[in-house]
Amino acid sequence: MADKKSDIGLVGLAVMGQNLALNIADHGFQISVYNRTASKTDAFVAENLSTPGGLVGTQTLEEFVESLERPRKVIILVQAGRATDAVIDGLTELLEPDDIIIDGGNALWTDTIRREKDLNAKGFRFVGSGVSGGEEGARFGPSLMPGGKESAWNELKPIWEAIAAKVDADTGKPIDGAEPGKPVEGGVTCTTYIGENGAGHYVKMVHNGIEYGDMQMICEAYQLMGNLLGMEPKEMSETFGTWNDGVLDSFLIEITTDILQQTDPETGAPFVDIVLDTAGQKGTGKWTAVNALDMGISAPLIAEAVFARCISAVKDERVAASEVLKADVPGFDGDKEEFTQAIHDALYCSKICSYAQGFQLMREAQNEYNWNLNFGEISMIWRGGCIIRAAFLQKIFEAYQRDENLANLLLDPFFKSEIERCEANWRKVVAAGAIHGVPIPAFSSALAYYDSYRSARLPANLLQAQRDYFGAHTYERTDKPRGEFFHIDWPEADRPQLKM
Amino acid sequence: MADKKSDIGLVGLAVMGQNLALNIADHGFQISVYNRTASKTDAFVAENLSTPGGLVGTQTLEEFVESLERPRKVIILVQAGRATDAVIDGLTELLEPDDIIIDGGNALWTDTIRREKDLNAKGFRFVGSGVSGGEEGARFGPSLMPGGKESAWNELKPIWEAIAAKVDADTGKPIDGAEPGKPVEGGVTCTTYIGENGAGHYVKMVHNGIEYGDMQMICEAYQLMGNLLGMEPKEMSETFGTWNDGVLDSFLIEITTDILQQTDPETGAPFVDIVLDTAGQKGTGKWTAVNALDMGISAPLIAEAVFARCISAVKDERVAASEVLKADVPGFDGDKEEFTQAIHDALYCSKICSYAQGFQLMREAQNEYNWNLNFGEISMIWRGGCIIRAAFLQKIFEAYQRDENLANLLLDPFFKSEIERCEANWRKVVAAGAIHGVPIPAFSSALAYYDSYRSARLPANLLQAQRDYFGAHTYERTDKPRGEFFHIDWPEADRPQLKM
Repeated sequence: MADKKSDIGLVGLAVMGQNLALNIADHGFQISVYNRTASKTDAFVAENLSTPGGLVGTQTLEEFVESLERPRKVIILVQAGRATDAVIDGLTELLEPDDIIIDGGNALWTDTIRREKDLNAKGFRFVGSGVSGGEEGARFGPSLMPGGKESAWNELKPIWEAIAAKVDADTGKPIDGAEPGKPVEGGVTCTTYIGENGAGHYVKMVHNGIEYGDMQMICEAYQLMGNLLGMEPKEMSETFGTWNDGVLDSFLIEITTDILQQTDPETGAPFVDIVLDTAGQKGTGKWTAVNALDMGISAPLIAEAVFARCISAVKDERVAASEVLKADVPGFDGDKEEFTQAIHDALYCSKICSYAQGFQLMREAQNEYNWNLNFGEISMIWRGGCIIRAAFLQKIFEAYQRDENLANLLLDPFFKSEIERCEANWRKVVAAGAIHGVPIPAFSSALAYYDSYRSARLPANLLQAQRDYFGAHTYERTDKPRGEFFHIDWPEADRPQLKM
Repeated sequence: MADKKSDIGLVGLAVMGQNLALNIADHGFQISVYNRTASKTDAFVAENLSTPGGLVGTQTLEEFVESLERPRKVIILVQAGRATDAVIDGLTELLEPDDIIIDGGNALWTDTIRREKDLNAKGFRFVGSGVSGGEEGARFGPSLMPGGKESAWNELKPIWEAIAAKVDADTGKPIDGAEPGKPVEGGVTCTTYIGENGAGHYVKMVHNGIEYGDMQMICEAYQLMGNLLGMEPKEMSETFGTWNDGVLDSFLIEITTDILQQTDPETGAPFVDIVLDTAGQKGTGKWTAVNALDMGISAPLIAEAVFARCISAVKDERVAASEVLKADVPGFDGDKEEFTQAIHDALYCSKICSYAQGFQLMREAQNEYNWNLNFGEISMIWRGGCIIRAAFLQKIFEAYQRDENLANLLLDPFFKSEIERCEANWRKVVAAGAIHGVPIPAFSSALAYYDSYRSARLPANLLQAQRDYFGAHTYERTDKPRGEFFHIDWPEADRPQLKM
């Protein structure tokens, strides 16, 4: 037990918790740690005796709380849901007014809203903070998305800013060699105050939804390269490597380059070929799609990405179906190099639409919850320390610099011109997927979204007429102001009978 | 007040309630009715003095309950949610053990499960019954989807079978001239016991999700006819009329034929042209998509249909966007007649996929809730008295007759051969939508679903490799049994740094 009280404490020493604690200690902050299984705490502290700030192991929650400087700051990094509530309950019996609880887990934002309200009512302060970048992000610099009262954030700010990822403002690349705890010249610090109560966890959720989309789009590009162009993983890796030097420069493209050149240590085959094609999906990506449906905001690409994982999961059914449903589709006979570029452009355009959908969600949530989100800053703090980090985010930042009230990213002059530049190829790829039988749900859904959004007139007039016909739901008219509702008495004699 | 006790009672005299009450009375059952606003009850009874069964107006809930034969059967037709709970609370103070409450509203199936449990615990019986077909269905023959204990259903059965839609078993057409209360020779009665607790409302929800899909698909056909082929509403009407004589024979195609030949009484223009193209979506369609995401079952077409309504709703944004985002797409120059047939085929194939998705949902829900659903019967009771009634449903019935454990409708020999027959046209239409800039999210999503389902190998292997790379999520191998998980220690030196 140290003589000095700790700057902060952390409960939950799974990998994320350990890594975040080490990151904090590395930046000169003394941190107390507590885990339900005390032996884990002992081992963790024993393995990390000399950190700049110092780790303080504690055996009981009482000892843990006692070891913290007032106002106490306690980060919880346990499983989202009941485990989080249980730890909060334990802590509130020991903490004092104005102490701050920080939930760093992947909480549902509505839980965060509920918890903040409860804790505020008891006199505590609460920060719900998204922590991105997985284990490595937590250890060496995550993107941090804190929500809560600004007074609580201000207490946390020095630590959060110290441990967050720092990236070069121009290139978006992580800045190497920065000293722990020292501010970084010319760098972007990947954390900022997001907004009240659940705003941080909401934005983290959308981040994850976007991540689902990004991963699915890369998979579709990979599928087209393999199925249509007959490319081998090594060749694909080279292509993705090239793409990573352009507008698609991003963490996920970069690791895809790595993965595709990886050899399976067991068989010597290309690694990706021996990995089973089934993915799980019960998490934040699903939450994002459900929330889009609940709010009535069109975000089909994220939903398609979730559903693509669902259908990947029924592997046995698919294998059986593949024996039965043999489509008579033509082989590809176009120019390989041209089509590779077309795939690139389809991925790029679809990605723009995906981010447009994600930012539309945040805009609507802002209205619903009365947050004051800074979309430019949000795109900036995603430039490092998280899975969706990408050069591209700089362009989103710039778009919101140009117009903070931008109705949709698609309307920004830069993105508009980028889509115009790449659109013909995008259309070609979606058409090719259909003709040649390669499923590309994200690419095609994105295109339908784009073409819907730019349609002054969609066929929902027919749909409203149908609803008026069978349910007297009424309709609005193109030649009358909005909000006036009309109904036709559909001629009884001509009506197709539902009746007996 | 009648001397004789009533066979059944109904609470809630909005249009649906009134119509269902009249339908019941028409079939020789005496029915007591109650409405919170007593004047409405009086007016309704006064307007309908001579029905075969007789309407009994009651002024208080006490009088209402007192007027019913034991075991009492009370249908609730009020707004789903709190209003339903409030009426149930009022009734339980007055009813006696073994009395039966029937919720005929569009309840969320999980609410129905909760209500049944609560009511059973108090000694009452409960039936949650989907009532389809809108106002006209309720009046002249709805499709009825009851769930609950079979003993409760058996009490309700004579009435439900009497009032349900009756259709010709061969043609699927409503049977005319049947006498109220008399069984119909050779007809399909559009009700059957669905299953325990929430099964009826669940199946009704999926019905509505499918309805969302059907409507969206017809809209996409309409959009293609207008935007690509330059067809006028009258000409489209003729085309839909022709389609209604073939495999697409259905209520929605039939009313679309009507709608497209309708003239706007105010301007003399084609009616559909003056209807505003914005649709609402907060309801059962959304619930279906959310449930698909929650269960992890791929049902993207229903989600796309909901999202299509969402994007239709931002009319002003779209009009503004249409001025900015002008796609440079070629005009259509193919053969009009051929392409019209292609649209037909795309609609047909997409519809098969949509129903396949809906039935996959029911199959999964059956596992989740331990129901024993009869998919063939479900498709049969949708043949009349509901918005999605279609000749097509006979084929689904036959598919489940051939194999009640069918893994997916797409695998049934009939549907397989139908898709094979129409598939090239479907692909052509999806490609044309992409190339010519017409948004057809349902058609293209359905095709991606089909091509995914028949893929022995999807690109989720790359996705799993990515997850193992950045999150150590592990992967399964193609050359090892399922359930064994592996992880690669990705070479640190080569890893794109998330760290600073």
